[in-house]
Amino acid sequence: MGKSPISWKVSSRALDQEVEVRRSLLSSLKRLIFGAPIATSRAHHERLSRFYGLPVFASDAISSMAYATEEILLVLVLAGSMATGMVTNISIAIAILVGIVIFSYVRTIYAYPQGGGGYRVSSDNLGSKAGRVAGAALLIDYVLTVAVSVSSGVLAIVSAFPQATPYIVHLGIAATLLVAWINLRGTRESGLVFAIPTYTFIVLILALIVGGIFKAIGSEVTPTSAVHPPASGAFEVFGLWIVLRAFSAGCTALTGIEAIADGAGAFKAPEAKNASFTLITLGVIIAVLFVGASWLSLQLGVTPLHVGTPEYKTVLAQMAEKVFGIGPMFYAMQIATMVILVLAANTAFADFPRLSSFMAKDGYLPRQLSNLGDRLVFQNGIMLLAIAACLLIFAFHGDTHKLIPLYAVGVFTSFTLSQAGMVVRQVKLKAPSWGVIASVIGTLTTGVVMLIILVTKFSGGAWLVVIAVAILLTFFYQVRKHYDYLAERLNVGPDEHVKPISGTVLLLVPPRIHRGILHAIAYAQNISADCRAIHITDDPSTVENMKAQWDKFGGHLPLVILESPYRSLVEPLLEYIDQAVSEEPNHILTIIVPQAVAKHWWQTILHNNAATPIKMALASRKNVVITNVRYFLE
Amino acid sequence: MGKSPISWKVSSRALDQEVEVRRSLLSSLKRLIFGAPIATSRAHHERLSRFYGLPVFASDAISSMAYATEEILLVLVLAGSMATGMVTNISIAIAILVGIVIFSYVRTIYAYPQGGGGYRVSSDNLGSKAGRVAGAALLIDYVLTVAVSVSSGVLAIVSAFPQATPYIVHLGIAATLLVAWINLRGTRESGLVFAIPTYTFIVLILALIVGGIFKAIGSEVTPTSAVHPPASGAFEVFGLWIVLRAFSAGCTALTGIEAIADGAGAFKAPEAKNASFTLITLGVIIAVLFVGASWLSLQLGVTPLHVGTPEYKTVLAQMAEKVFGIGPMFYAMQIATMVILVLAANTAFADFPRLSSFMAKDGYLPRQLSNLGDRLVFQNGIMLLAIAACLLIFAFHGDTHKLIPLYAVGVFTSFTLSQAGMVVRQVKLKAPSWGVIASVIGTLTTGVVMLIILVTKFSGGAWLVVIAVAILLTFFYQVRKHYDYLAERLNVGPDEHVKPISGTVLLLVPPRIHRGILHAIAYAQNISADCRAIHITDDPSTVENMKAQWDKFGGHLPLVILESPYRSLVEPLLEYIDQAVSEEPNHILTIIVPQAVAKHWWQTILHNNAATPIKMALASRKNVVITNVRYFLE
Repeated sequence: MGKSPISWKVSSRALDQEVEVRRSLLSSLKRLIFGAPIATSRAHHERLSRFYGLPVFASDAISSMAYATEEILLVLVLAGSMATGMVTNISIAIAILVGIVIFSYVRTIYAYPQGGGGYRVSSDNLGSKAGRVAGAALLIDYVLTVAVSVSSGVLAIVSAFPQATPYIVHLGIAATLLVAWINLRGTRESGLVFAIPTYTFIVLILALIVGGIFKAIGSEVTPTSAVHPPASGAFEVFGLWIVLRAFSAGCTALTGIEAIADGAGAFKAPEAKNASFTLITLGVIIAVLFVGASWLSLQLGVTPLHVGTPEYKTVLAQMAEKVFGIGPMFYAMQIATMVILVLAANTAFADFPRLSSFMAKDGYLPRQLSNLGDRLVFQNGIMLLAIAACLLIFAFHGDTHKLIPLYAVGVFTSFTLSQAGMVVRQVKLKAPSWGVIASVIGTLTTGVVMLIILVTKFSGGAWLVVIAVAILLTFFYQVRKHYDYLAERLNVGPDEHVKPISGTVLLLVPPRIHRGILHAIAYAQNISADCRAIHITDDPSTVENMKAQWDKFGGHLPLVILESPYRSLVEPLLEYIDQAVSEEPNHILTIIVPQAVAKHWWQTILHNNAATPIKMALASRKNVVITNVRYFLE
Repeated sequence: MGKSPISWKVSSRALDQEVEVRRSLLSSLKRLIFGAPIATSRAHHERLSRFYGLPVFASDAISSMAYATEEILLVLVLAGSMATGMVTNISIAIAILVGIVIFSYVRTIYAYPQGGGGYRVSSDNLGSKAGRVAGAALLIDYVLTVAVSVSSGVLAIVSAFPQATPYIVHLGIAATLLVAWINLRGTRESGLVFAIPTYTFIVLILALIVGGIFKAIGSEVTPTSAVHPPASGAFEVFGLWIVLRAFSAGCTALTGIEAIADGAGAFKAPEAKNASFTLITLGVIIAVLFVGASWLSLQLGVTPLHVGTPEYKTVLAQMAEKVFGIGPMFYAMQIATMVILVLAANTAFADFPRLSSFMAKDGYLPRQLSNLGDRLVFQNGIMLLAIAACLLIFAFHGDTHKLIPLYAVGVFTSFTLSQAGMVVRQVKLKAPSWGVIASVIGTLTTGVVMLIILVTKFSGGAWLVVIAVAILLTFFYQVRKHYDYLAERLNVGPDEHVKPISGTVLLLVPPRIHRGILHAIAYAQNISADCRAIHITDDPSTVENMKAQWDKFGGHLPLVILESPYRSLVEPLLEYIDQAVSEEPNHILTIIVPQAVAKHWWQTILHNNAATPIKMALASRKNVVITNVRYFLE
C-alpha cells in the first residue's frame, strides 16, 4: 500500500471473481433474486426506431383504452339511459383534445430533442416552484398509473375468469410486486417485449370495432336510444354538469401521452423528427380506438357494472363477448389487455425512479433516491413506488371506478405547466409566432381541462390529490431546507484546516476479566496514552475481588469504580462522562465497549449486549465516540 | 479525576436529582409508565403473618375452585347424565389427594424453611437433570396459570355480562397485559390487596354451599339421579376410564398448592411453623370448598356449557344464579371470582421471573433473565411470561375447556420430583422414618397421579406439554453449553497478559470534504500515527477535483482512491481491507466512518448512512474495528 500523500489505485483484478469468492449466503440470495451487479460502464441507451418507439413509450397511453370508455359510461349511466347516447360525442371531444395536446407537445420535442419531462421544462422556464408543482403532480400520477393499470389489468382477467373475483386485491398486489421485482433486476427489455402485446392489443380492438360495424350493419344488435334534448333550464345545467363529469372521466385516455416527448432522446437520429412522427401516429391510434370503442359500446348497448360483483365484466370484455362470443378471441382480448396494462405499470416503474432521482439531485428529495443500485437501477425509487401503489390498491380494494377519479388531475397539471413553460421559452428565444400560438392553445386547453377535472372530480377523490400535492410540496421544501442548512454548516471555509484534538479512552470492564478484555486493553493502549478502565457495580462486596483481578491482568491501566445504586450501567457512566467532558471541553472521549462475538447470530441473545443501551443514551453527547471492540470466540 | 492505578469513587450527589435533570422524553415516558427507579438497598421482604400469608400465597390454589368442579362435570356429562352423580365421590378422592400432598409438603417446609421450590429441591437432592425437568415443567405451568386464570376470570365476567362474549380473547389479553404492567411497575402489594378478595371469595362460596344445603333441605331442587352400577365388563373398563379422566380434570384443584412451601421464608418467625399451619389451613379450605361445590352442583343439577355460546355461564355462576338469583350476591360472586383469578395470574408473574432468574444464574437460560430492572423486578421474565400467556389465550380462544387439559401435568411432575428429592434428602440426613414414609407416600401418590393425568389427557393436549418440556430441556442444554464454551474460551490463564498490538486507521471520505471530515481527520490523527484516507468513487472524472480538495484540507493524510465499477461502497472497501489484514495479521484496522448528526431524528433519513452497510459487511472480519465519528450540526 502506497504511503505517498496521494496514491491512485485501480483494481487490476476482475472484481467479478473477487466478489464470487467472498460473498455470504445473504449476498448469494440477493444475487439469485436480483441478478449479479452490472458495471456502471454498461449504462447505455438502446436507440429505438419508430416501430419500436411507439410500443415502448406508448403502452401507457394506449392501455387507457381498456378503461376510458367505461369511465365515461359510468357517469352517463347515472344520469339515465338516454344520457349514454352522448358517449360518442364526448369521445370525439376528447380525441380533439388529444390532437391539441399532441400538436403542442411536438413543439416540446423540437425544443428538448434529448427529452423534456414536465419537471424539467417547468423548472427551466417557469422557475423552481412551478417545477416542483409539476414534479409533485407527476410523482403522484406515476403511483396512480401503477395502481390503476394493475387494477384494470386484474379486472380484465376477472372478466374472463370470474372465479378470481375474491382475489382482486391479492392479484393486484402480486402483479405490482412482480413488476417491481422485474425492475429491481434492471433487465433491459428488448423493444419486442413491448411491441408484441401493444400491437396485438391495437389489432384486437380494431378487429372488435370492425366486427362491431359488421354486426351493426347486419342489424343484429339494437343501439340504445339517441340523446333526447333536455326539456327545461334546470335540466340544462344538470346536463352540462353530467357532460363535464363524463368528459373529465374520459380524460384518463390522455394519461401517458407525454411519454414520447419525455423520452425523445431514446429515438434514433434524427431524434426530434422520429419522435414527432411517432407521437402523431399515437394520436391517430388513440383517436380511432377510443372513438371507435365508445361508438361500439353505444351500438351494443353495454352498461358498466360494479366491481366485485360475481357477474362483473369490464365494458371492453362485454363488447368482446357480444362481438366475438366467449371463445379464443375473447380470451385473447382479455389477456392482451392484462399484458398491455402491466406494461403501462412497468413504464411508471421507469419514470418514477428517474424523476425522483432528478429531484433528489436538486435537493428536493432524500439523496438515497439518486443512488444507482447494483443493477444500475434506482432501487429505492422502485421500492417506494411499489409500496405506495400497493397501499393504494389495498385502500381502494383494486376498484378502478374508485381510483380513476384521483387520476388525470396530476397529468393535466403537468401538461399545463409544461406547455406554459414552452410559451415562455419560445417567447424568450423569439421562436416563430405560430409555434407560440400552438403552445398557448395547448396551455389554455390543458389548463381549462385541468380545472374541469379538478372541479368535477373534487368530491370524488381529486381532493385527496390536492392534499397529497400540498404535502409533497411541503416535504420538498423541508428537505431542501435541511440540505441547504447541512451545506452551510458543513462547508469548509478556505482558511479552515484540521484542528488537532486530544483524547481520553474509557474502557468499560465487566465483573470478570476475560480474554476479550485483555484484547480491548491492548486496543485502548494502542489508540491513546490516556486510558482509564471503568467498572460499574451494584454490589460493593465484589469490589475487592475486582481490584485484585485488575492488579494482575489490567496492564497498569488505572481503574475507576462507579457505584450504581439503581443497577443501571448507563446512569453512572453518563454522570462520569458529563463530568469528564465538562472538565476538558476540547477533548474527545472514546468509550470502548468490549464484546464477545459468537459463531452463530442466535447466540448473541445469550450475551448481555451493553453497547446498544450505551449508544442510545449517549446519542446526544458531543465529543463522545463509542467503539465496539469485538473479540471472536473462534 | 484520579489517575492512581486504582481509585474508588462513590457518587456523593443524590443520583435521583441527577437523573431528574438529564432525562430525555423517552425516559420521562418510561418513568411515567413504569415509575421511578428503586434503589437496590430497598429490596426487602415484608414478613407475613398467617392471616396475610394465606391469601398472598394461596390465591392461586383457592382460585382453582372457580373451574375445577366444572372440569369434572364436563368429562362426566359426556358419559351420560347418570355418570354426573360421581362428581362428589371424585371430589372427595381429590380432597384426600390434597391431604397427602400437603402432609408431604410440610416435610419440605421444615427442610427448607427459607423456601424450597421444585427446581431447587430437585436440583439439590436429585441432581441438575431432575432439577431442569422440574424447572421446565414449572415454567410451562406458570404460563398456563396465567392463561387459565385470566381466561377463567373473563368467563366469570362473561357469565354476568353476556354482551362481552365476542370479546373473550380481547379481554383476556388486556387483563394479562394489565397484570404484566402492574408487575413491571414492581409495586409491593400490601397483604390487604390479596386478603380482601381471597377471604371474600371463600366466604361467598361457603355462603353458596350453605344456601344450597338449605335449598336442598327445603326440597326446592331435585337432585339428578344417583349413579347406576355398570351392567357389563366392557362398561366397567369404560367407566374406569371416565372416572380417571374426571379425576385428572379435577386435579387442577391442586395447582398452586406448593406456593406456601416455595415461599415459606416470607412468613414471620418461626417461619416453618407458621407456614405449615397456613398450608394445613389451606388444605382444609380447599377440601371443604371443593367437595361442597361439587356436591352442590349435583344437587342443583347444573350442566357445563360450551364457551363462546351466548347463553354460556360457568358452573359456579349457574349455581349462584340458582341459589342467590340474579342479584347483588350473584354479581358479587362473579366479580370476586374474576379478582381472585387475576390475583392467581399475578402470583405467576412473581414466580416465573424468579424461577427463570435462578435458572439463568445457573446458566440454563439467557443471562438477561437474571437482570434486575429499574424497579427491582426481573422485567425480561415478566415480559416473556406476558407474551407467552397472550399467545396461549389467542391460540385457544380464551376457552378454559381447551386450556385446562394442558394444565396440571407440569404441576404434578414438579410435585413428584420435589417429593422424591425430599425422600433422598431425608434418607441422607437420617431423618426419622415416619418423615421418609410421608415423603415416599407423597412421591408415589403424586407420581401415579401424574401418570394418570398424562395418559388420560394426552390426546386432549398434554402431548403439547411433553413436547414443550422436551424443547425447553434442549434449550437449557444448549444455553448452558454455550456459556460453558464462552467461559472456556474467555477464561484468562494465570500467565496470560495484555499483548500489545499495532494499528492502522482507515478514514472513509465522501466526495466532498466538509467540516465533519476535518473533525474525523483530527480524531484519526489523535488515535494513530498510521492513518490513511480512503475515497471510493464510481466516477473517475471526479478524481482530480478530489485530489485538489485533499491537498488543501486533508491534513497531510495519505489518500487512497478506490474505483468502484459497481457503485458499491462496500465491495472495494472489503477488498482493500482483506489485503491490508492479510499483509499484517497482528494488526488492528480501525475504520472511521464520519457521520453528520442532525437535530431531529427524522432528518437522518436525509443523510446517506454508510456506517450500517459497512458494519454489516464487516461483521465477520476479525481485527477490524468500525468507529462512527459523529459531527454535530448544532
